[in-house]
Amino acid sequence: MIIVLKPHTSEEDKKKLLERIESLGLKPMISQGVERTIIGVIGEEDVLRVQPLEAFPGVEKVIPVLAPYKLVSREFRPENTVINIKGTEIGGNRISLMAGPCAIESRESFMAIAQAVKKCGVNILRGGAFKPRTSPYSFQGMGEDGLKIMHDVGGELGMITVTEVMDPRDIELIQKYVDVLQIGARNMQNFNLLKEVGKTSKPVILKRGMMSTIKEFLMSAEYILNEGNFQVILCERGIRTFETYTRNTLDINAVPAIKQLSHLPVIVDPSHATGRWGLVEPASLASVAAGADGLLIEVHTHPEEAVSDGPQSLTPKNFFRLVGRVQSIAAAVGRKV
Amino acid sequence: MIIVLKPHTSEEDKKKLLERIESLGLKPMISQGVERTIIGVIGEEDVLRVQPLEAFPGVEKVIPVLAPYKLVSREFRPENTVINIKGTEIGGNRISLMAGPCAIESRESFMAIAQAVKKCGVNILRGGAFKPRTSPYSFQGMGEDGLKIMHDVGGELGMITVTEVMDPRDIELIQKYVDVLQIGARNMQNFNLLKEVGKTSKPVILKRGMMSTIKEFLMSAEYILNEGNFQVILCERGIRTFETYTRNTLDINAVPAIKQLSHLPVIVDPSHATGRWGLVEPASLASVAAGADGLLIEVHTHPEEAVSDGPQSLTPKNFFRLVGRVQSIAAAVGRKV
Amino acid sequence: MIIVLKPHTSEEDKKKLLERIESLGLKPMISQGVERTIIGVIGEEDVLRVQPLEAFPGVEKVIPVLAPYKLVSREFRPENTVINIKGTEIGGNRISLMAGPCAIESRESFMAIAQAVKKCGVNILRGGAFKPRTSPYSFQGMGEDGLKIMHDVGGELGMITVTEVMDPRDIELIQKYVDVLQIGARNMQNFNLLKEVGKTSKPVILKRGMMSTIKEFLMSAEYILNEGNFQVILCERGIRTFETYTRNTLDINAVPAIKQLSHLPVIVDPSHATGRWGLVEPASLASVAAGADGLLIEVHTHPEEAVSDGPQSLTPKNFFRLVGRVQSIAAAVGRKV
Amino acid sequence: MIIVLKPHTSEEDKKKLLERIESLGLKPMISQGVERTIIGVIGEEDVLRVQPLEAFPGVEKVIPVLAPYKLVSREFRPENTVINIKGTEIGGNRISLMAGPCAIESRESFMAIAQAVKKCGVNILRGGAFKPRTSPYSFQGMGEDGLKIMHDVGGELGMITVTEVMDPRDIELIQKYVDVLQIGARNMQNFNLLKEVGKTSKPVILKRGMMSTIKEFLMSAEYILNEGNFQVILCERGIRTFETYTRNTLDINAVPAIKQLSHLPVIVDPSHATGRWGLVEPASLASVAAGADGLLIEVHTHPEEAVSDGPQSLTPKNFFRLVGRVQSIAAAVGRKV
Repeated sequence: MIIVLKPHTSEEDKKKLLERIESLGLKPMISQGVERTIIGVIGEEDVLRVQPLEAFPGVEKVIPVLAPYKLVSREFRPENTVINIKGTEIGGNRISLMAGPCAIESRESFMAIAQAVKKCGVNILRGGAFKPRTSPYSFQGMGEDGLKIMHDVGGELGMITVTEVMDPRDIELIQKYVDVLQIGARNMQNFNLLKEVGKTSKPVILKRGMMSTIKEFLMSAEYILNEGNFQVILCERGIRTFETYTRNTLDINAVPAIKQLSHLPVIVDPSHATGRWGLVEPASLASVAAGADGLLIEVHTHPEEAVSDGPQSLTPKNFFRLVGRVQSIAAAVGRKV
Repeated sequence: MIIVLKPHTSEEDKKKLLERIESLGLKPMISQGVERTIIGVIGEEDVLRVQPLEAFPGVEKVIPVLAPYKLVSREFRPENTVINIKGTEIGGNRISLMAGPCAIESRESFMAIAQAVKKCGVNILRGGAFKPRTSPYSFQGMGEDGLKIMHDVGGELGMITVTEVMDPRDIELIQKYVDVLQIGARNMQNFNLLKEVGKTSKPVILKRGMMSTIKEFLMSAEYILNEGNFQVILCERGIRTFETYTRNTLDINAVPAIKQLSHLPVIVDPSHATGRWGLVEPASLASVAAGADGLLIEVHTHPEEAVSDGPQSLTPKNFFRLVGRVQSIAAAVGRKV
Repeated sequence: MIIVLKPHTSEEDKKKLLERIESLGLKPMISQGVERTIIGVIGEEDVLRVQPLEAFPGVEKVIPVLAPYKLVSREFRPENTVINIKGTEIGGNRISLMAGPCAIESRESFMAIAQAVKKCGVNILRGGAFKPRTSPYSFQGMGEDGLKIMHDVGGELGMITVTEVMDPRDIELIQKYVDVLQIGARNMQNFNLLKEVGKTSKPVILKRGMMSTIKEFLMSAEYILNEGNFQVILCERGIRTFETYTRNTLDINAVPAIKQLSHLPVIVDPSHATGRWGLVEPASLASVAAGADGLLIEVHTHPEEAVSDGPQSLTPKNFFRLVGRVQSIAAAVGRKV
Repeated sequence: MIIVLKPHTSEEDKKKLLERIESLGLKPMISQGVERTIIGVIGEEDVLRVQPLEAFPGVEKVIPVLAPYKLVSREFRPENTVINIKGTEIGGNRISLMAGPCAIESRESFMAIAQAVKKCGVNILRGGAFKPRTSPYSFQGMGEDGLKIMHDVGGELGMITVTEVMDPRDIELIQKYVDVLQIGARNMQNFNLLKEVGKTSKPVILKRGMMSTIKEFLMSAEYILNEGNFQVILCERGIRTFETYTRNTLDINAVPAIKQLSHLPVIVDPSHATGRWGLVEPASLASVAAGADGLLIEVHTHPEEAVSDGPQSLTPKNFFRLVGRVQSIAAAVGRKV
């Protein structure tokens, strides 16, 4: 940690600060500049992180040197984490494709969509039973009935199932029916929820909050790993910016950046990241080219009748074309789908 | 709702769309332009809101006309909502001052801070017992022990108490100890939590998410009112922008904008909105000048020892000066503190 | 300047870096931490600023310690700069009101507006002759004809005149007709234009770019001062954020922040900062409460016929009310209008 | 254009508005809803764009239906624009690679870099002679001396040359020395500069402003085409967001979005879009996968000695590897380098 003092800080204030640092078992190193004094602090930085040194008189700013996360970092684990779900690997050489509707609407429509995506070679099936909706008047999901449908369809077709969990009270129920728990963007900093999924033995897809930095994203993953669950898949799904032509701005830089900073698998959700089905394919190709380990895509047999996210859903026909093109890009970067 | 069609949309696509609209009991009005066809839809717009008309072939964009919230709107209730808590009114002519530490750290320090702010004329006391922290390694709050301290100190000094609730499972406990429930910025779209506080009889301070638009903010309040709890206080606490000199950007425009759009009281948290104690006073004065009904301010007797948010906490001395100046501004806009 | 090395940086890379620092006449101070090495650099930091030390092998990040501006800083000049224009002071105890239409449209309409704002006690008249417009098909301003109108009307009514300069080639012409040059938000980083106005003897209103940080804003002012012109008035006019309800987000925090960082006068343009005339008054009151030295407001006798910015223009009647309320707020903070 | 009226708008206000619309030769179509009246306007929308209908009493909002640009739109020209520079095509099947240092620093270093990138198969050489720098104290470019070096090196190696123009007064000079004019991000809305390059016969690379929407970007291109110069290459170079880990956020969505909206070639500058050389390669691959027609990359033989942008410059060795990988991705999407 580096502490920069204001010009003309009194000797007394400086002394108080140094005493505090030393009282924590740390060693301050003073660099006396022409205009500023800088104090480098040697030792366990974590001790200092919880200390509001910026509130000391005379302190201009405090600059942390080390990343505030540990378990998720590449320094902690240099090799890639590969998560194995019923024999399917995520984070290895293969690009993982996950597809399905935004929300489960009925057994028939969900089965039809699942069959359609399976035909395209997908074996991870997504679908929402509990839906976070901006409006209290919008469809809130089928709840447990939806979970049962997901369980049955997944079982029948031999597909791995993924669904969102919004409330710590629902985890027990959801666990019984599905294979992978998803934390949505709006809950990325719902810390109690993170702790609870960290206590389960299920793999977790953690979506980046739409206004969360890469650092905060990794800190939220740290919450899950810190509870003992290392099966975390990070999902970039677009961030909120001033641009309104697209629903969100796909932060493609984040994909290789996170791969450098962390050992966890990184996937991209191009459906939310663009909000327009006509952009989902190029965004998918870009993601795989940039190093993503997988894609999470909204597919619907009848987008114009979907109760949610219709404008960004692909038809099975368009999805089939996308899969073919993703295969070409995967091959170009030495991977397979 | 207005639907804009793409140029060269086929008659068949147009027909399908019109049939769908009529099947919902609505009446489409067609304006045939030189380059575009526009369809105005007359009737209960709510029916259409859940229909993904944008996914229909031929549809370029769908523009809602009405605000998607009802109960929170000024149109629903033209006069200001005034919330009465043990005889203290929020949203009336008086500016409400709420102050206290970010987190409750011990009985002694909390009592000292409470006494200090009470001396400045404040009778609403804030303090966190459950703290949402970016890092799992940071202090997470004293939990129920903190609630007990808050309850005792509030009772002894005759002050109204406010604390944050992060988890639906904690509501029952928290209700027993405090007067006002606060929903933090990170939980503004934790919809299950909103529903649960909507079922209580406690006033709720709802903080704006740092990434949320004014519209989304009002929609989240709608969730609470929709459960029957109309005692909602909206709190602007700064939004996230590209500017990094301050912790957040206080969206001062939002104060009069929300007062125009909604009947609910609006307060400002200048501590989080600036992140620098040296800016808290001018931000407070600006908020009251812009029409805010109250201020929520972090005060600490020893900011340099606070376990959380020290850099943005005011000392009692600086807070006392602030209260005096707020009184002058309040008088200038015809109000009292 | 502080340099943080990557873990496991080789001794050779470290040596090369230290040699470079010493070759610039600077003294490196090494702090060897458990996980990281930190190098503090003592001496003239400016020498280092232009050196891409981040590109050296082994360097993780480089953190500047000193602000990159000098002439505009409070440290350079502790007392407030007060600019005197024909006997009117800007930056002193009085709040400066500047008003007029977005664009000069005709002699008659400009005279009518000027008379109206003068009646409200305003003696600084604004109006655009060269207009930066997003579309090439929009009205681009009256050019020199507009300047002549401004000159005549200003002379007749004894008002100080302000107009925008967009092109270094126009400065000579504009100087002949008006008293104060304005640099628009889109040109805040048009560095050649900044240099040219820096060579004139006219006061300059520099508007903050909608995408510019406070630091960049001050750096742009530094360009003007560096050419010898210290008569610079900084104007906060709203920044671009994700919020779309308002045209821009008034960064009210920037007002006191800049007053702390710099000695230059700071004014606010609430018309652009809100984009809605119904919010101009509360934004004006907030600005003065936060410490602004003046306001720049769009007024039009017939907003619905204005060729530009009609939706954010005040009628003289609404402006008159605003001036009265600004007087009350000014008095509350110990100032006058 | 669609006009939404406020509830309870008086008949008189409505009448005034309709009269204004009709006086412009347009035909209003009224849709009377339960809660709102909507007016669709049929006819030349351009006439209305300059009219501030939002300032009329009773008007809630005005929604344009047509895109405000014409010449740059796909509707105006459905096939891709291919720009031919001395036999090299930009915007056709081949991916164009443009590379070189941020700034021209000396004849020797520029020649060395040019030779290095030529060896990698690049025949478009970039380099700055006039540099827009945030600080007046930073290196501002070699000016005409730099142009001469560029001209000589380009001539000797048979490469096409690109340099930035910052000031309308420099265009005549720059034109004499280089093949392609570049407008930097900070000047994207320097409208006079756009008009002036529009009057030349040189191809223009127009960089997107870091806080400009796709629509504004296209409007700025429209300024150039409107002067008769259709040889415009649009360059996405990252936008400013809240994320600070990277220098900018590469808006990868913008690449296919602009290709759908416009016929102009689109290239990407991954150096500025990431600001970290370690991310330049994945960002380049993503850009080509998403449909970019070319890449503009900073290469320096000694990044640690570069006077500008060292941290984001690639060494020739890393650039060589990048070119090989871009070839693979290009092949995967049916194109060549």
